[in-house]
Amino acid sequence: MVIALVTDFGTRDYFVGVMKGVILSINPRAQIVDITHEVPPQDVATGAFVLKATYRWFPPGTIFLAVVDPGVGTERAPLIVKTRRYFFVGPDNGLLMPAAEEDGVDEVYRITARLPEASKTFHGRDVFAPAAAHLSLGVEPRLLGVPVSTWRRLELPGARLEGETLHTCVVYVDRFGNVYTGVREEVKKVASVGDFLCVETPRGAVRARYVETYGRAPPGEAVLLINSEGYLELAVVMGNAAATYGLRPRDELRIRKCT
Amino acid sequence: MVIALVTDFGTRDYFVGVMKGVILSINPRAQIVDITHEVPPQDVATGAFVLKATYRWFPPGTIFLAVVDPGVGTERAPLIVKTRRYFFVGPDNGLLMPAAEEDGVDEVYRITARLPEASKTFHGRDVFAPAAAHLSLGVEPRLLGVPVSTWRRLELPGARLEGETLHTCVVYVDRFGNVYTGVREEVKKVASVGDFLCVETPRGAVRARYVETYGRAPPGEAVLLINSEGYLELAVVMGNAAATYGLRPRDELRIRKCT
Amino acid sequence: MVIALVTDFGTRDYFVGVMKGVILSINPRAQIVDITHEVPPQDVATGAFVLKATYRWFPPGTIFLAVVDPGVGTERAPLIVKTRRYFFVGPDNGLLMPAAEEDGVDEVYRITARLPEASKTFHGRDVFAPAAAHLSLGVEPRLLGVPVSTWRRLELPGARLEGETLHTCVVYVDRFGNVYTGVREEVKKVASVGDFLCVETPRGAVRARYVETYGRAPPGEAVLLINSEGYLELAVVMGNAAATYGLRPRDELRIRKCT
Repeated sequence: MVIALVTDFGTRDYFVGVMKGVILSINPRAQIVDITHEVPPQDVATGAFVLKATYRWFPPGTIFLAVVDPGVGTERAPLIVKTRRYFFVGPDNGLLMPAAEEDGVDEVYRITARLPEASKTFHGRDVFAPAAAHLSLGVEPRLLGVPVSTWRRLELPGARLEGETLHTCVVYVDRFGNVYTGVREEVKKVASVGDFLCVETPRGAVRARYVETYGRAPPGEAVLLINSEGYLELAVVMGNAAATYGLRPRDELRIRKCT
Repeated sequence: MVIALVTDFGTRDYFVGVMKGVILSINPRAQIVDITHEVPPQDVATGAFVLKATYRWFPPGTIFLAVVDPGVGTERAPLIVKTRRYFFVGPDNGLLMPAAEEDGVDEVYRITARLPEASKTFHGRDVFAPAAAHLSLGVEPRLLGVPVSTWRRLELPGARLEGETLHTCVVYVDRFGNVYTGVREEVKKVASVGDFLCVETPRGAVRARYVETYGRAPPGEAVLLINSEGYLELAVVMGNAAATYGLRPRDELRIRKCT
Repeated sequence: MVIALVTDFGTRDYFVGVMKGVILSINPRAQIVDITHEVPPQDVATGAFVLKATYRWFPPGTIFLAVVDPGVGTERAPLIVKTRRYFFVGPDNGLLMPAAEEDGVDEVYRITARLPEASKTFHGRDVFAPAAAHLSLGVEPRLLGVPVSTWRRLELPGARLEGETLHTCVVYVDRFGNVYTGVREEVKKVASVGDFLCVETPRGAVRARYVETYGRAPPGEAVLLINSEGYLELAVVMGNAAATYGLRPRDELRIRKCT
């Protein structure tokens, strides 16, 4: 069974290795897959975005073990979320929910099982990894925790059309500096492929052509396109849009057709 | 069956995770191995070098899935290259060919199969990962694409001896700052172990002793040695040669015995 | 059988990929787990710390393949260390010993087997990876090398109580900038949870509250706590203690209760 990891632990320390050791000690046949360990430290919204962008490409039954957890050591609950096709294991801070809700939440459990020598500061090792490993062996979630009926939600930013202007914000910046906005198909209400769009940002306005694919525009040109995840993305062909325009996650954007 | 990955996707985004999910959805028993995801963005020549330096250490039958693809979204073809012992899957931009040609190219196919909901910008997910996963199940390449008889080649830099001077350039810089030149055994035509060599670079000349191994020289000394890949390498013992001498891939070098 | 890797090779080059290829060529069923490849280059003490912090979480029989090896190319021996529950494979420079001694050393072998085309500079590929792969197939260590009775030790820093002051140094800095001191339970001899401690560093003094967990203190506050590995750790809540106070591994620290 696949256990897929999303954390903000980075890869230079021993944290991820220890979690893998714990998993393999419980289920030596677990197939552990690294999605990423480089979520910006304690950035729950970015972790939630990465999980939501990834989960549905994995085989049914995959167990997602996600840890971005500013609240470790406080009373926030550790959760198992059983959805239509998957399990999500992680803290009750909204991290799991955009993905889990899209797939359809069946049941949510507060994890009560933990390693005998559990610490207060490394729940990835002591609580989440053991739970994921036991799920991968087929252990029922009700044997690992107690059902709960409330949990923290988190909504990823979308877009709002006011007149002919889309109000949105930066949802994600990838390593190439491509800037994902919260706009999806709504862009079609304000522009057609080939049009120029004006993007107002906190640090000035950007004029960019709405295109179908990167390959259609010359290097250095700012373009907007619906990317592979279905988001309207601001990109600079062969360049870095986030660096060029000083954009960061959660920056507000207003997008309209140029006049 | 092993599927080994070389990309410029980095490890902080969801791209690699999604490709792994697609592979495991098609072949849950695939053994996925990360070679690197940190090829410099869109640097096809460096990706080709990494693939060529790595492939022959893997077991016969390994499927190499390599994506460094500035042309995604254009008409460049996606390829399966069947060689004497391996499969290489990736874009038709030369990336696969230094490794594939060294092993011996048997047949080349343009991939026509893709995921039902294929995008224009993420062929790693929609075209390359599915092809690699199907190959790992034993699917014949002719069921995934059509044979082609031409493709883009790419030659990695070598060396040319003029008089007593080797003309070459920087082929690769590793994370330790060691500088790989295009010179291999030819160095023996101009110098013997123990000699001092003069390396002319675009940013000045470097005098370095030609040694057999790092361990033989004091910290801080510039040395040249035939490295584990068979390339003449400029190194600074316990230091960073690329940073010290301002060298980058493709910088031209002239190397001769010091007089 | 699990083969777990700790190196300073980084993940952007081909080194780790080649080692994985060698392992899989010898044992296609080996389960390779990356602990980290980002030990600071040639920092044997940090590599030893990471290995010691990680090993005991893995299943018995795990083979740890650790390469942080400034002495490659010199006469330092390559070792297999058989401990009570594990195998450790790596250079004879102390890297393996803090972990191995904690588990209990049974037998130590100098590896004599190597790949036919072995190089002088890449023992990870030519000596250590083949040894680990053969161990994972159940090959006896005496068939891979010869027993030795001496080897290099390395002691990780601890703490010394003088009067009411703990003398120690920085053992490790994690990616969050948390500063691990060599102090463990000894802190209880000089302070109780809730007390303020004064930490003298080479770059000034820090006043920090001794707490049980991060969650108990406001963002920006300096705290000391026994972390999940059992070390007294200097942290800044939601911040970076190493950057804030300019601390690095091996910096000397004196810690006492504030008056």
